[in-house]
Amino acid sequence: MAKLKIGKLVVIGVGLIGGSFALALKRARVVKHVVGVGRTRRNLSTARRLKVIDEMRSDAGRAVRDADLVLLAMPVGQMAAVMAAIAPYLPPHAAVTDGGSTKRDVVACARRFQGGHYRRFVPAHPIAGTEKSGAAAGFPELYRDRCVILTPQPETDVDALRLVKRAWTTCGARVVTLGAEEHDGIFAAVSHLPHVVAFALVNALAHRRDARRLFGFSGAGLRDTVRIAGSSPEMWADICIANRDMLLATLDDYEDAFEEARAAIEQGDAEALKRLFARARAAREKWLLKRS
Amino acid sequence: MAKLKIGKLVVIGVGLIGGSFALALKRARVVKHVVGVGRTRRNLSTARRLKVIDEMRSDAGRAVRDADLVLLAMPVGQMAAVMAAIAPYLPPHAAVTDGGSTKRDVVACARRFQGGHYRRFVPAHPIAGTEKSGAAAGFPELYRDRCVILTPQPETDVDALRLVKRAWTTCGARVVTLGAEEHDGIFAAVSHLPHVVAFALVNALAHRRDARRLFGFSGAGLRDTVRIAGSSPEMWADICIANRDMLLATLDDYEDAFEEARAAIEQGDAEALKRLFARARAAREKWLLKRS
Repeated sequence: MAKLKIGKLVVIGVGLIGGSFALALKRARVVKHVVGVGRTRRNLSTARRLKVIDEMRSDAGRAVRDADLVLLAMPVGQMAAVMAAIAPYLPPHAAVTDGGSTKRDVVACARRFQGGHYRRFVPAHPIAGTEKSGAAAGFPELYRDRCVILTPQPETDVDALRLVKRAWTTCGARVVTLGAEEHDGIFAAVSHLPHVVAFALVNALAHRRDARRLFGFSGAGLRDTVRIAGSSPEMWADICIANRDMLLATLDDYEDAFEEARAAIEQGDAEALKRLFARARAAREKWLLKRS
Repeated sequence: MAKLKIGKLVVIGVGLIGGSFALALKRARVVKHVVGVGRTRRNLSTARRLKVIDEMRSDAGRAVRDADLVLLAMPVGQMAAVMAAIAPYLPPHAAVTDGGSTKRDVVACARRFQGGHYRRFVPAHPIAGTEKSGAAAGFPELYRDRCVILTPQPETDVDALRLVKRAWTTCGARVVTLGAEEHDGIFAAVSHLPHVVAFALVNALAHRRDARRLFGFSGAGLRDTVRIAGSSPEMWADICIANRDMLLATLDDYEDAFEEARAAIEQGDAEALKRLFARARAAREKWLLKRS
């Protein structure tokens, strides 16, 4: 197979996800020119200074005019506006992918706003990230050995799918294909729910008048449990709203599990509580530890 | 000040906490002989093989007969029985400390079951640990630069307090003194609550029929958030029951914070949700990141 060659890559939203994608493809020497598009000049300047991008633009439409590959890496709440803005300017051969954490809404957006270009849009969700955000947080190894989920539609063009797949693979990722609905159900449970929990846990302590003193006595347990509460509020608010129905269903499951523990505590039932905790520990050992 | 010298140390419950205490004092060469007491022969044999202890005993009463220092490091639910068992045998000069995560209940136990020896009991809570348990999990550096909280009572003997303080300091810990009630309120919030949350979060996923598949798609976010769900179910059930009143109050705070987020999600209110998440992120940055 000939080496992947991308003349012009346009990254819209040069944060951790977009920046790392650009850096990985640059390091692999498969991309000639990277254009970064964003809302704030400051972040784009940082991206250019750090050689994450070669050129900065504020107008997404103009930026994609002669693009070969476009990555949409803004918070999912901006997806509709950006797709509408670029649709009239995308050259016919360009493929478009995204880095959004939800897929049904992104697919619906593309169907509505990408017009004739919808067939060359390949929805993607890279399962990678840290709690940091912004261009300076990007690094070329972010996707190495990580899973990237593609949710192509029946209409998706085979060539576009192949190009996008190769781009993610070149970043070091393993590519897995799922249905958009299936994807959203899984990630409501394993990703969106834990974020809501972590943010709420910090708020429960932060609301208190003795918050400073409380946090002063915390240890590694609390610190790890709420690490993801350092994630971008804007991005995660968008994700939770976009995947609202499936997220609410997993919040129900979680509240049931939480109330089960609470009831045992209220009743002073140490045996019941021990059984609940033991079940959780066993599940964690069986399904989470084996993999790392 | 003369070097700390402990002729005979008796560790009741040779797990992560007890084993690490013994190893740290051995490495500092301040202890001559360490006796380990436990319920299961297998764990004690491991402890002896790994030189965590020098001698193993199943009878706590006999073991403490000529002890200089005794560490009670069993799950807090066994505290009463062990204290009652050792009280008749403790030599008058021996000091007793513990490693329990709750302090009001341990103090009440000591008052009731330690008899004349109550004045030489110095309650302690080392803020250290990993999610591992058992003698093999112990290591001498566990307490280095960690905080150990002592909650001495008005009756506590000054010499016993001094000895126990020096023992923990020799392990590398910083010693802080708090009231038992104050201690329990703080740790209900920063430690017991996060454990209940982490166990419940794993159970919410583990209950599902597609649990294996779900966990297969999880990333570092979920893994860190539920790391402490690997902790000992028995120990944590005991802690939650022992500190029930204060824990229930923090569960209320947490449920309020969680419901606030849930309401914003239900209403599709991205702005409100973003504000909640931003508040949590700011609190984490201000109070948790600055310290590490």
